[in-house]
Amino acid sequence: MIEDKNQQRTQLSDLGEFGLINHLTEHFEIKQSSTLKGVGDDAAVLKFENKKVVVTTDLLLEGVHFDLSYVPLKHLGYKAVVVNLSDVCAMNAQASQITVSIAVSNRFPLEALEDLYAGIQTAAKIYNVDLIGGDTTSSTTGLLISVTAIGEVEDEEVVYRDGARPNDLLVVSGDLGGAYMGLQVLEREKEVFKVNPNNQPDLEPYTYIVERQLKPEARKDIVQLLKDLKVKPTAMIDISDGLSSEIMHLCKASDVGCDLYEEKIPLDPQVISTCEEFNIDSTTIALNGGEDYELLMTISQDDYPKIKANPNLTVIGYMKASNEGMHLVTRADTRIPLKAQGWKNFND
Amino acid sequence: MIEDKNQQRTQLSDLGEFGLINHLTEHFEIKQSSTLKGVGDDAAVLKFENKKVVVTTDLLLEGVHFDLSYVPLKHLGYKAVVVNLSDVCAMNAQASQITVSIAVSNRFPLEALEDLYAGIQTAAKIYNVDLIGGDTTSSTTGLLISVTAIGEVEDEEVVYRDGARPNDLLVVSGDLGGAYMGLQVLEREKEVFKVNPNNQPDLEPYTYIVERQLKPEARKDIVQLLKDLKVKPTAMIDISDGLSSEIMHLCKASDVGCDLYEEKIPLDPQVISTCEEFNIDSTTIALNGGEDYELLMTISQDDYPKIKANPNLTVIGYMKASNEGMHLVTRADTRIPLKAQGWKNFND
Repeated sequence: MIEDKNQQRTQLSDLGEFGLINHLTEHFEIKQSSTLKGVGDDAAVLKFENKKVVVTTDLLLEGVHFDLSYVPLKHLGYKAVVVNLSDVCAMNAQASQITVSIAVSNRFPLEALEDLYAGIQTAAKIYNVDLIGGDTTSSTTGLLISVTAIGEVEDEEVVYRDGARPNDLLVVSGDLGGAYMGLQVLEREKEVFKVNPNNQPDLEPYTYIVERQLKPEARKDIVQLLKDLKVKPTAMIDISDGLSSEIMHLCKASDVGCDLYEEKIPLDPQVISTCEEFNIDSTTIALNGGEDYELLMTISQDDYPKIKANPNLTVIGYMKASNEGMHLVTRADTRIPLKAQGWKNFND
Repeated sequence: MIEDKNQQRTQLSDLGEFGLINHLTEHFEIKQSSTLKGVGDDAAVLKFENKKVVVTTDLLLEGVHFDLSYVPLKHLGYKAVVVNLSDVCAMNAQASQITVSIAVSNRFPLEALEDLYAGIQTAAKIYNVDLIGGDTTSSTTGLLISVTAIGEVEDEEVVYRDGARPNDLLVVSGDLGGAYMGLQVLEREKEVFKVNPNNQPDLEPYTYIVERQLKPEARKDIVQLLKDLKVKPTAMIDISDGLSSEIMHLCKASDVGCDLYEEKIPLDPQVISTCEEFNIDSTTIALNGGEDYELLMTISQDDYPKIKANPNLTVIGYMKASNEGMHLVTRADTRIPLKAQGWKNFND
């Protein structure tokens, strides 16, 4: 489906470990004042002047988290960084550094890793983070990427999951369900391609949702927006597993309940039309789809005037006492207990 | 060879991701004052008061870095942490936090992961580091461990690879070659076991070297010793790939040459006797064996009186001008250029 136009193949063994790391990272620049020493010693050396430091890490595995038959390596590198930066944003922090480790089998030529690192570098540039370390090793099967992201935040600005209080507003950035529906489109095209490799897929009607899947963004802009609006959320989390699961995390950590209004859930028109095409309920997709990397937060009602006119933020419900439970209030005005579909990898 | 006495098998899918992480990490305590928030939010939150922060990361893969037919999972967990802490020590820093991510296939029951985490917890306790995060995912094959270690160091105390100057003394902690010879013994016993599963291996004569392989230590004690002796190395690196390769890294980073004296290389008697048994040259093993996790440093000649009586530190050579090259001076007083065997994983 994704045609490999790069015919050149350089064996990884031609470079050796240090040659490989140097080759892949030589064009990365150090820009953060907090980075004193990046790649090239036993460890990177950082200095954060009187700020809190946040640290998060994620593993991405071929065959589990991505399928290289329709994910270009450059996009994969970009996404591997972004999903970690999204966690940094969820702490209301600014990302500053990343480490990237990869395990890769011999079937990948050097040119494939160059594509992967081109995506990593693009993300590092756009999000203004320094690549400060990593490890490169061979794998007996497939590709694995492990990213650790580091960020900084003023002492009083850090936002946890556990600060939501009854009557706080539940607010989400952007729109939901796009990444999951983009994946459905890509999976369908992969099946079509298997049957007829000459068929050229027309992804034009799905541009937005396919991009949401292949090239998600961390909502660094929302962290800045909240700062500009002088709104500090009482709790915040990023939406990696689906709205329902993340709401339940917030409620559990904060010991509160919640009413979520179905009619308020922000959906892009392309998500709605694609859901109709696939005959899937769009609310189910928004609740359980995952990988949208939007920010879900609770804010004090006092802050409502500051956000109400903003197109990037949507109030989708409000928090209640813990004993009132967590519910979806449907368009038909019935109340359904929220369920998290959660993580099913081990059941595959 | 390692008998599995634990007959209980709990499927990982019975727990799900969050249940699994919670279950594996619930007995870990937070002890460092720099850890404000560990596992349980989008990111950990740390605060380092006016210190430099060091960050290092390593990937360990089954079939590449370890063989579960003779490495008990508890030892593997311990070692996965220690090899990262060794890098922190090499910066002259104190380790304070770790993140641990694992990818694991369905063939591992929960009890196996509990063993792995018992080893991680033992290392965390002994080295006084907090587990602050990680990721747990399924893998299509085998086990993978990704550890990131964080440490702190006073501004003026950090030691890089690039500070060695001509006439500095080349100093190594402990002794060398043990980990590699321990591996040879374990590999031999594995072959014997394949032929005759009833044969009970007698590892008694190899206790020290097998422990060097299975349960290496990071030389945190040497970092403290240097502090007590008021010696700040001009350059330092940990020995993960073999003495020869690490000397070349120091020389290249510092733009100096070096004379290394064969007769000064510290070897344990068990390494010497096992090398004789295997008919291998012990100097070759010390130079290229790897995984000893000792510290290799250069110190000013002015500091020699402070270290000369110390049994933990051995002067093995001295640094020269860059144009004089890097040489091994043999017992027969011939000078042989140093070579790094380096990293050959991609050639396998």
